[in-house]
Amino acid sequence: MSMIVNRRDLDFIFYEALGLDKLLQSDRYADYDRESLDAMFDLCQSIAEEEFLPCAGKLDANEPQFVDGQVETIPEVKQAIAAFKEAGLCASGYDADVGGMQLPWMVDQALNGMFVCANNPIHIYLFLTQGVANMLNACGSDELKDKYLGPLVEGDWFGTMCLSEPQAGSSLADITTKAEPLEDGSYKISGTKMWISGGEQDLSDNIIHMVLAKVPGGPAGVKGISLFLVPKMRVNDDGSLGGRNNVALAGLNHKMGCRGATNTLLNFGEGGDCLGYLVGNENQGLANMFHMMNEARISVGMSAVMTALGGYLYSLDYARNRPQGRDLANKDPQLPQVMISEHADIKRMLMTQKAFVEGAQMLMHYSAQIIDHQKISDDAEQNQRMGLLLDLLTPICKSWPSEYCLEANKLAIQVLGGYGYTREYPVERLYRDNRLNHIHEGTWGIQGLDILGRKVQMHNGAAVAILREEVQATIDSASAYPQLAVYCTQLTSTLDQVEQTIAAVVACDDNSLALANATIFLDAMGHAVIAWMWLIQAVAASAGMVKGESTDQDFYAGKLAATGFFFRYELPKAKASLELVADLDSTCFDLTAEQFLGQ
Amino acid sequence: MSMIVNRRDLDFIFYEALGLDKLLQSDRYADYDRESLDAMFDLCQSIAEEEFLPCAGKLDANEPQFVDGQVETIPEVKQAIAAFKEAGLCASGYDADVGGMQLPWMVDQALNGMFVCANNPIHIYLFLTQGVANMLNACGSDELKDKYLGPLVEGDWFGTMCLSEPQAGSSLADITTKAEPLEDGSYKISGTKMWISGGEQDLSDNIIHMVLAKVPGGPAGVKGISLFLVPKMRVNDDGSLGGRNNVALAGLNHKMGCRGATNTLLNFGEGGDCLGYLVGNENQGLANMFHMMNEARISVGMSAVMTALGGYLYSLDYARNRPQGRDLANKDPQLPQVMISEHADIKRMLMTQKAFVEGAQMLMHYSAQIIDHQKISDDAEQNQRMGLLLDLLTPICKSWPSEYCLEANKLAIQVLGGYGYTREYPVERLYRDNRLNHIHEGTWGIQGLDILGRKVQMHNGAAVAILREEVQATIDSASAYPQLAVYCTQLTSTLDQVEQTIAAVVACDDNSLALANATIFLDAMGHAVIAWMWLIQAVAASAGMVKGESTDQDFYAGKLAATGFFFRYELPKAKASLELVADLDSTCFDLTAEQFLGQ
Repeated sequence: MSMIVNRRDLDFIFYEALGLDKLLQSDRYADYDRESLDAMFDLCQSIAEEEFLPCAGKLDANEPQFVDGQVETIPEVKQAIAAFKEAGLCASGYDADVGGMQLPWMVDQALNGMFVCANNPIHIYLFLTQGVANMLNACGSDELKDKYLGPLVEGDWFGTMCLSEPQAGSSLADITTKAEPLEDGSYKISGTKMWISGGEQDLSDNIIHMVLAKVPGGPAGVKGISLFLVPKMRVNDDGSLGGRNNVALAGLNHKMGCRGATNTLLNFGEGGDCLGYLVGNENQGLANMFHMMNEARISVGMSAVMTALGGYLYSLDYARNRPQGRDLANKDPQLPQVMISEHADIKRMLMTQKAFVEGAQMLMHYSAQIIDHQKISDDAEQNQRMGLLLDLLTPICKSWPSEYCLEANKLAIQVLGGYGYTREYPVERLYRDNRLNHIHEGTWGIQGLDILGRKVQMHNGAAVAILREEVQATIDSASAYPQLAVYCTQLTSTLDQVEQTIAAVVACDDNSLALANATIFLDAMGHAVIAWMWLIQAVAASAGMVKGESTDQDFYAGKLAATGFFFRYELPKAKASLELVADLDSTCFDLTAEQFLGQ
Repeated sequence: MSMIVNRRDLDFIFYEALGLDKLLQSDRYADYDRESLDAMFDLCQSIAEEEFLPCAGKLDANEPQFVDGQVETIPEVKQAIAAFKEAGLCASGYDADVGGMQLPWMVDQALNGMFVCANNPIHIYLFLTQGVANMLNACGSDELKDKYLGPLVEGDWFGTMCLSEPQAGSSLADITTKAEPLEDGSYKISGTKMWISGGEQDLSDNIIHMVLAKVPGGPAGVKGISLFLVPKMRVNDDGSLGGRNNVALAGLNHKMGCRGATNTLLNFGEGGDCLGYLVGNENQGLANMFHMMNEARISVGMSAVMTALGGYLYSLDYARNRPQGRDLANKDPQLPQVMISEHADIKRMLMTQKAFVEGAQMLMHYSAQIIDHQKISDDAEQNQRMGLLLDLLTPICKSWPSEYCLEANKLAIQVLGGYGYTREYPVERLYRDNRLNHIHEGTWGIQGLDILGRKVQMHNGAAVAILREEVQATIDSASAYPQLAVYCTQLTSTLDQVEQTIAAVVACDDNSLALANATIFLDAMGHAVIAWMWLIQAVAASAGMVKGESTDQDFYAGKLAATGFFFRYELPKAKASLELVADLDSTCFDLTAEQFLGQ
């Protein structure tokens, strides 16, 4: 079995649950059919398994080093990236007009997901580059695009996002990096940026930094932030590289996981002029950056899912092949030991991983296909409607997998016991890699404020109403299968409670108090949405059981069991959480800093 | 503030909640009073802070290496151990008759806890040695004790526990290490032992291994296991060291955390005769080993608590001193940033850590004082009664902190954000250290089977009945404080549900099905017990508020808030869990290995 993908599950999500075949009938995706996509998955799977996966442990144990002012990375990384580029995969995430493959995003997500699962640190460089190129394409001038877009799309140059600063992590209002206009229209950039993934490396010919900075004299806070393109090496008019642009590596951060991707502290303009080029208009930097934020946040969630999938597959394979102990009904020591996958508690831990990973993966692809459908549809009203739904789902996409797929990684360690706790096995590394996802691209707490303070309230609660309509459509389709009725009732009841909770929050005059339990709301709302994702899968599995091949019965039975698990073991937890939020419980909020220790 | 202890909290638990002052009035502890104990805490705190804490990060980054057949450890470890020995602390855990300090166990627990918090890997060597010495003292012959006990108690020799083997982790019935009787009464040991902490090191003159092995011809399974003392270096009759005893280091395991303590694969008798000496009688090895198991399992829980305390204190201190963002009520960017401890979600994460850590620490000391009281009491009936209660509490002591104090460490990382994810800050290391505790000394799943399959059912449910009596005594004492009434009602209701759940399990004829959700029962039962621990603290805090100094009001208010947090945010989760167990839900149990992936 593969350690990076369950192709049967991908086929199920795409063709049985989300109707990818219909999407492929549109003009936009006319180059693709199921057969050609299968071939592409085959190719990506083999590159990921042969070039990315084998060096993941070595890269973790031999993270990039800072030697004589340069970063040094183990050679296997360059080889893996070369294979990725050679297969043309750097172009997978772009439209045809800039030389891309113009794939549906959900397909691109899944293709890239195999590389994330195999070796996330390497993929971080590739993922960031795609984000920079898309931002440049969306907001940059033709002049900037002509000069910088091609090498980014081809993967010759890599990109970074430079937002945080040492004194301003999540609080972008407080950044102090300065951009002073020069006569030729460019800007002189000076300041320090923190937590810059890929900020220095020895893997690409140039690095294109997307930098948030403030033009002197502009408005205070986030309203005075502008976006600049700042190359590591200056680029001549003919596209050749000039001299260094005074972006200096001030230090590498040494992380718990994802060690293979550099994370840097960068100084701009310390040793001489550092030139930057405005992307979009002055003082609209945050809006331009947020242009990509939905997709970036969903990608963080996808990274959490894929990292957990690796742990799930590995621990499942281990459990099926590790003899230990005996059935509780007959512990005769003369009998041979049974595989640990026979023990009830091991099954529980594997089932929990399955329910979390496959439920979250469904949400990632569901969210991506909203954008895919928007791109092929002229129905402005429906597009806006689904756009609002996506806005609502985005903080859940970012945070729910960061919490529960991390929990899945924790359980994968437990399945392996002592072996799982050693670096000779991959599961502890995957946990460490995944721990990042709750922190970057907006922390857990920030996502909570986003969903409860903004998303559920925007347009008088329109997004939640749309969510209910879409859930109802699933419930309607579930009516053909009586055994699903109990889940439909439970989900309806949970969503009723969600709405009552939102009403209580909206009715509260004290915004700080109303949002004090926002993270807990996000958690509970996430459970409701993932329950919906399982209901969609249960409908598809029920249909498959009727129509399907007899060899598929195990697969569908597993899907229905996981649905049952999620509704019985997980969804009930949302109830108590929503009660706390609706009660405006202030137990934590009222505490003073002195009361924690009494000093 | 200290990063390894909250002395005010220790004083509260000992003198306001658990009545240590009364215990000190007994003859057994007549050498001690509060003043002398305070001095001892001062001494230990300073050694832990000055010798153990500063090298914790360095030891993690520079784990012991296997060089030319020898283990090499950084010199700071030897210096720390020397300071510990010099202060006489190796003797803290023994009775006076073998040269020990004869402290109450709860005091010894807390003294050692500071070292665990400061640098758990170093403490692992010291802790294991104490376990070996106690086992030898309890079960060994006078001849063995004369020869081996003194150097162990003085800390000149260290000890290990050798149970697991590569093919037999949790399943001791399947060990194959052989002990062949020799004519002089000793045994020839041969076999391989896995996961042996401290199995080789360069820190003590000799290593005394306590080895489980089978004498050929004995009964199959666990009934044929005997316990042997196997020294690394043979010991002459005059106590001087002889030659090597053919215990060979076959490899070091490279762990996720606790990296500073070696964990080894050992070969016994591979290169020549390896001599072992029977401890207790043949075929009673497991019983002799389990003689210490209650205390060892509580110590694992204590280690989880202390590791989480380190994260809690560090993240609290960070949050109080890190400016970032602004109050939701006024986000004017011209205002200075506020400390992050002012943000509601940071408070929630700190409060969760406090509730988990201080709740679990209370349980550790509560459990230890049961043994302390047994040692000074002639009341056989009461001693037996409390012994049964301790048997019931032990799997909770082992597992609840391993789950929830680990969760606390995860939250400590989150409070620090990106910084928390780097190895420049201690919180990620503490998480990695703590991840071990759910695995060793009986995994989570094994503790679940222990509590639901054995402990709640023994003597017709006597232990649960005793638990209810003791909880009722707390509820009676809470009646003086009307604001606690709601918690008393909630706890009573939860325990009613626990009893109904146990009844449903006992009524089930199919043992495998009945125990299928044992881990979930353990989790819920743990929540009920920790809620009780918070109620005890709430009673003491309420009393303190009335009587106490005005400077203590913050401390007591914090205790009452944490009690409220646990009852409002955590205890409700037990309800849905207990329902699953009572329903004999078989969602996971019914799944076949093929259904996970459909292949």
